[in-house]
Amino acid sequence: MGETIFSRILKGELPSHRVYEDEFVIAFLDVNPLSRGHTLVVPREPAETLADLSDEASAALGRILPKLCRAIVRATGCKSYNVLQNNGAAAFQAVSHVCFHIIPKPDKLHGLRLDWRIGELNPQEAAVLALRISEAAGSGVYPAQRA
Amino acid sequence: MGETIFSRILKGELPSHRVYEDEFVIAFLDVNPLSRGHTLVVPREPAETLADLSDEASAALGRILPKLCRAIVRATGCKSYNVLQNNGAAAFQAVSHVCFHIIPKPDKLHGLRLDWRIGELNPQEAAVLALRISEAAGSGVYPAQRA
Repeated sequence: MGETIFSRILKGELPSHRVYEDEFVIAFLDVNPLSRGHTLVVPREPAETLADLSDEASAALGRILPKLCRAIVRATGCKSYNVLQNNGAAAFQAVSHVCFHIIPKPDKLHGLRLDWRIGELNPQEAAVLALRISEAAGSGVYPAQRA
Repeated sequence: MGETIFSRILKGELPSHRVYEDEFVIAFLDVNPLSRGHTLVVPREPAETLADLSDEASAALGRILPKLCRAIVRATGCKSYNVLQNNGAAAFQAVSHVCFHIIPKPDKLHGLRLDWRIGELNPQEAAVLALRISEAAGSGVYPAQRA
């Protein structure tokens, strides 16, 4: 992995409005916020996508999210918020380093704006797909079908 | 917390296309997917929002996300995806139980569709806000200012 804005912030080469840091993660205000309090939570471990991140780094990141959400709610007074993490340019990833956004949603105009167009799950296709994902995860949810 | 669709799925009272489960979380296909492979990851611990979830449950959820992302990428062949978690009706939360969406992004039409309208961080306001969030998180990033 090459240098990114985040790796340079992690090394202290670029400034940031930091709100939290520990052994595993740092969190700082997004310079182009969707709303007041829009915060980025970045693992110190270099990983381009969530699929590339180690279980340990991802667990540490997961562990700190509730505390950061509470802190942002308290500081902004906004109780609704979205947590978003993008992987791949097609999925709006802008920096090649894992990052969780915590984005307060104070009203319809500010914060995350979604165009949520749902489909319908086809039961037959879903059964096949769920089995495939389950097998790929090695989760053993469907032992009978795999025997 | 009252009954929800997720608590009923957790108790086995409602069916789901399950792809993973362990002591802390279950994961199953969304019945109204934004794209093929759209999966919900739900902690067994009852918590309405991420801010309400225990550190341990959130760490367990964080720990399993990379493996599930890899499994969904492998099963769908789609390398780009978004991870989304909504808190509060204003932020599109539909079920009163914490849930992480993993949403493959195969093309512009399918998957998560965002309307990303950025603002600009005002340095003076940002310094005040970062300090407030930092203090609310008890993170000690700004010891000098708090002394």
